Amino acid sequence: MIADVLYERIKDFGPVCFGLDTSATYLPSELLEKYDSRAAAVLAFNQALVDATADVVGCYKVQVAYYEALGLAGMQAYAKTLAYVRSKGVPVIGDVKRGDIAATGSQYAVGHFQGDFEADWITVNPYMGFDAIQPFIDEAVRRDKGIFVLVRTSNPGAADFEYLTVTDQRPLYMHVAEKVANMAANHRGSCGYSAVGAVAGCTQRSEVETVREALQGCFLLIPGYGAQGGTAEDVAAYLENGNGGVVNASRSLLLAWKSQPEVGFAQASRNAAIKMHEDIMTAVLKAGG
Amino acid sequence: MIADVLYERIKDFGPVCFGLDTSATYLPSELLEKYDSRAAAVLAFNQALVDATADVVGCYKVQVAYYEALGLAGMQAYAKTLAYVRSKGVPVIGDVKRGDIAATGSQYAVGHFQGDFEADWITVNPYMGFDAIQPFIDEAVRRDKGIFVLVRTSNPGAADFEYLTVTDQRPLYMHVAEKVANMAANHRGSCGYSAVGAVAGCTQRSEVETVREALQGCFLLIPGYGAQGGTAEDVAAYLENGNGGVVNASRSLLLAWKSQPEVGFAQASRNAAIKMHEDIMTAVLKAGG
Repeated sequence: MIADVLYERIKDFGPVCFGLDTSATYLPSELLEKYDSRAAAVLAFNQALVDATADVVGCYKVQVAYYEALGLAGMQAYAKTLAYVRSKGVPVIGDVKRGDIAATGSQYAVGHFQGDFEADWITVNPYMGFDAIQPFIDEAVRRDKGIFVLVRTSNPGAADFEYLTVTDQRPLYMHVAEKVANMAANHRGSCGYSAVGAVAGCTQRSEVETVREALQGCFLLIPGYGAQGGTAEDVAAYLENGNGGVVNASRSLLLAWKSQPEVGFAQASRNAAIKMHEDIMTAVLKAGG
Repeated sequence: MIADVLYERIKDFGPVCFGLDTSATYLPSELLEKYDSRAAAVLAFNQALVDATADVVGCYKVQVAYYEALGLAGMQAYAKTLAYVRSKGVPVIGDVKRGDIAATGSQYAVGHFQGDFEADWITVNPYMGFDAIQPFIDEAVRRDKGIFVLVRTSNPGAADFEYLTVTDQRPLYMHVAEKVANMAANHRGSCGYSAVGAVAGCTQRSEVETVREALQGCFLLIPGYGAQGGTAEDVAAYLENGNGGVVNASRSLLLAWKSQPEVGFAQASRNAAIKMHEDIMTAVLKAGG
């Protein structure tokens, strides 16, 4: 069961989620020049990074926007990146933020849970309502896959709509959290966590307890660490005994070679992933588990 | 300017938007059997429908979910469908409902405003906030493209979050509408409508005036006609002198051949599109403009 697989993986390898939001502009120029196309270079970069980090991260997240930007060749690089991670036996999240109703939602789920674009988990946008989430859950159950529903994102613009206060005095995102938790309850593995998780940014420390409690039994996909200001302590407060969530970092790992040019880009990313893992686990221990 | 192009097109050809949400299961079996792959059959079906209807519809909308479901071959069919419509000089909307922040949002916009997946307009999901809409507007301005932001969708689940009442007593979707209208104001063509439009379903008649007023100067992409219960009268109430919006129909046009098997699938879709156009224009005239 997909939730148990992620749970065991986090237990053994820690909660670092390496975000392969790979812009061709992030690549060392020597690598870029070696390939005929930006898409081919991006794929080679990703594969080298996966080779270098598969034993020091909990999972990968591939942000499809960077691949769509490169057209069909980019989508092929996306497909091959997902397949490469899966061939290593490491869970991979397709960060596609899809959301649509009924038959259309099912088509998205089919597209991202099997075939060329098969991921283990995908991210889902809840704006349109439950009938834009349910088709993803139905397909996830059918294929033993999982979803992370956007609840509280880590961007400043989250304030615009997610934080609007509803007449019961709770912000919109808490309504979404409540509904996601209800949906999640029916899809728990033996680890206690569900195949229905949530995206919850770690940039607002004051809300961590409330959000974590509202999303009991949900894995959290946690953006906002590092570049966006989230600290290891913020992250540790979201985790439960160091599990129950994965902490994404993209640019800080992808661009690690810029601050350690002497070790090569793959080793630089590995070093950065190990350091991030240690930082988080130190904070987890300090937080008392 | 993209808004003026759409305005003129609606003026000359009417507001019917033919939704190419083409599931392979919608194809006549003879057609499906002629091709090696479902994706190739879907593309041939789309091309025949475009040939048969380009002079009786205002624009096309291609729902990418149906193509993603077919993997890389499907994305190629998506690319070729968009290119085929564009080669006829007809505006095409990529119904991709993307939404992500900053650099990632820009990547989506680049992906769908140029290159293999180039559309004239795309749909955008506002859940994450302004900083998940602005990158799409920036790219749209740069490339003379347009967006439709999801405001009030036509599905029952719209009630779950879009209708939550915020403390100022307005529903969430009216907050979104207000912000979209503000953003739209800076991007109007000489026709008076903006390159920033909104998706507003026609299934709740009681709200039409409020929504239309909140979205002054915005083209509306109107789903919900036909199968979902919206009538020509509902639609007419959204339009302004028969312009200022496009009315999507997908299954009723794609599957028209099932109720007129004797004329062939392409002619059946053409007949259905003409009838839909007439229904809407009759209601527009009745509504007094």
